[in-house]
Amino acid sequence: MEKITVLGAGSWGTAIAFVLAENGHDCLLWTRRTEQAVEINEQHTNAAYLPGISLPENLHSHADLAAAVAHAQTIVIAVPTKAIREVCRQIEALSNEPKLIVHVSKGIEPDSLKRISEVIEEEIDQSKRQAVVALSGPSHAEEVVLRHPTTITAASNDNEAAVRVQDLFMNQYFRVYTNDDLIGVELGAALKNIIALGAGISDGIGYGDNAKAALITRGLAEITRLGVKMGANPLTFSGLTGLGDLIVTCTSVHSRNWKAGNLLGKGQTLDEVVSGMGMVIEGVRTTKAAYRLAEKYDVSMPLTQALYAVLFESVHPKEAVDQLMNRMKKQETEDIFYK
Amino acid sequence: MEKITVLGAGSWGTAIAFVLAENGHDCLLWTRRTEQAVEINEQHTNAAYLPGISLPENLHSHADLAAAVAHAQTIVIAVPTKAIREVCRQIEALSNEPKLIVHVSKGIEPDSLKRISEVIEEEIDQSKRQAVVALSGPSHAEEVVLRHPTTITAASNDNEAAVRVQDLFMNQYFRVYTNDDLIGVELGAALKNIIALGAGISDGIGYGDNAKAALITRGLAEITRLGVKMGANPLTFSGLTGLGDLIVTCTSVHSRNWKAGNLLGKGQTLDEVVSGMGMVIEGVRTTKAAYRLAEKYDVSMPLTQALYAVLFESVHPKEAVDQLMNRMKKQETEDIFYK
Repeated sequence: MEKITVLGAGSWGTAIAFVLAENGHDCLLWTRRTEQAVEINEQHTNAAYLPGISLPENLHSHADLAAAVAHAQTIVIAVPTKAIREVCRQIEALSNEPKLIVHVSKGIEPDSLKRISEVIEEEIDQSKRQAVVALSGPSHAEEVVLRHPTTITAASNDNEAAVRVQDLFMNQYFRVYTNDDLIGVELGAALKNIIALGAGISDGIGYGDNAKAALITRGLAEITRLGVKMGANPLTFSGLTGLGDLIVTCTSVHSRNWKAGNLLGKGQTLDEVVSGMGMVIEGVRTTKAAYRLAEKYDVSMPLTQALYAVLFESVHPKEAVDQLMNRMKKQETEDIFYK
Repeated sequence: MEKITVLGAGSWGTAIAFVLAENGHDCLLWTRRTEQAVEINEQHTNAAYLPGISLPENLHSHADLAAAVAHAQTIVIAVPTKAIREVCRQIEALSNEPKLIVHVSKGIEPDSLKRISEVIEEEIDQSKRQAVVALSGPSHAEEVVLRHPTTITAASNDNEAAVRVQDLFMNQYFRVYTNDDLIGVELGAALKNIIALGAGISDGIGYGDNAKAALITRGLAEITRLGVKMGANPLTFSGLTGLGDLIVTCTSVHSRNWKAGNLLGKGQTLDEVVSGMGMVIEGVRTTKAAYRLAEKYDVSMPLTQALYAVLFESVHPKEAVDQLMNRMKKQETEDIFYK
């Protein structure tokens, strides 16, 4: 049994804490809202995020961040991506021992173009952290708490830390693989949202499975190409955090990114989509970041460029997809991975 | 304009001929049945296979195989996989000049464990063929004839032949990539049906997107592993004929293999499924072939083994999936590609 703190009691943070508590660990789930902490402690539910689910009785919650940080040497950060930097500053201020930091976020910081682990390392001094591990993969929270089989990757530059995280989470229904390619795992997790947007657009136009399969395959090829230039292992993009997560995102009608793309394909403008959905569409921010990364690393990313044109330059989606189809003929693997 | 013969007027053969005729070629579509040839020539339809579609008026059909073979130097074989060997024998007997042979079949011959191009090369003497090209990728015929965007791969050991095929087919909505990895293209096209069966079983049990994504990702990893041992380029399995075709097959409820798996997951026996569906389920034959290939090449293929146990050894699907999830913990990329 180990002590672990999970920061953030949204659906995914709660599912993570559910697994850890079921594995017998002394898991503390931090939330900003006292009434949510009370509900988790007294009702053993988190009805706003995981309706109908009974949480393990040994799972405790707290609304005091200082107490939460003090509780454990292992901290899992499960707050929204854009709150990561701020939460890290607070961990830094509140810690007086080196922590093992696990994060479960998928994104790239729009202005700095930094990956999540880079943000964490910037904000938490080396003296106050042991290692950073990204936990990522195809995993709807709702399915994990039903104990349906789920696979996920623990990635770190520090293999020992990845194995520790693997040991904490692994059980009957939650299967953890380690991967030493932190760059590839974090990039794949973030950039797959671009492809989900593209797949949604194609479906929204009324194109079929052939076009969607082409977009997904060629999209994975171009994010692999960027990843390799940035130092990732190309094979990581064919693994759980790349291809696996992509399949879940592109084929689930519950995916926000797919849904946003679908509305764009049907003719709505980005403003209409954003105000209609009333929430952040991560793939839109990520498209901007990827567009800039493609320039910075001088990588050909036609799908990203087409999406950028649709989102920010008022190009009609059908025109963008048709242009994409009419690029020069190519040698398949050469084009995918070496150009 | 070139002369081309397509053998087999099922939905895919007809769609192929549709593209070639639209591209201005003198395309002859051979069918065994005279009344079907008459319908194509006079009504410009093939209502049994592509209802509601008008075929190009310059597309002609013929029920005489000798005339069809004599018509062109380029022959596209689009007959069912199990008829390939017999059709090749007839081409061999009827030809008196070397032909460029294109095939669009997905399978492995169950007893010989041969790929389609190997069967073709066995049956058609070297003096009577120029090269063999496999045309494969994520492509429902119904979408191609609606001119919805489709991408596909022309694979051959003879790059010049692949480029010739690319030139014949390429147009606005039909985008052809070349690939020199014939082994990888043919294996991926055949073996993906195993994964579709597995995905169907998982859905049939009632498991969710997480489990399906895991099966697809790990399944692709194991067919890659086998492919590499057999001489394929691992990247091919992440391309259109591997990943791309897999996405179409695993996420379309129209897929026969997915549907068969789904019924197995719901508790039907293989006999019940086969007699209920009243047609060949390619993934069942391919599972047997892959199981034997895994033994022959000494490759770890846990998904294939689990499927084999469900299909032929009466193991309960849920038990098989749960066992699959509980194998030793692993290092992700190492396990995927190097073991």
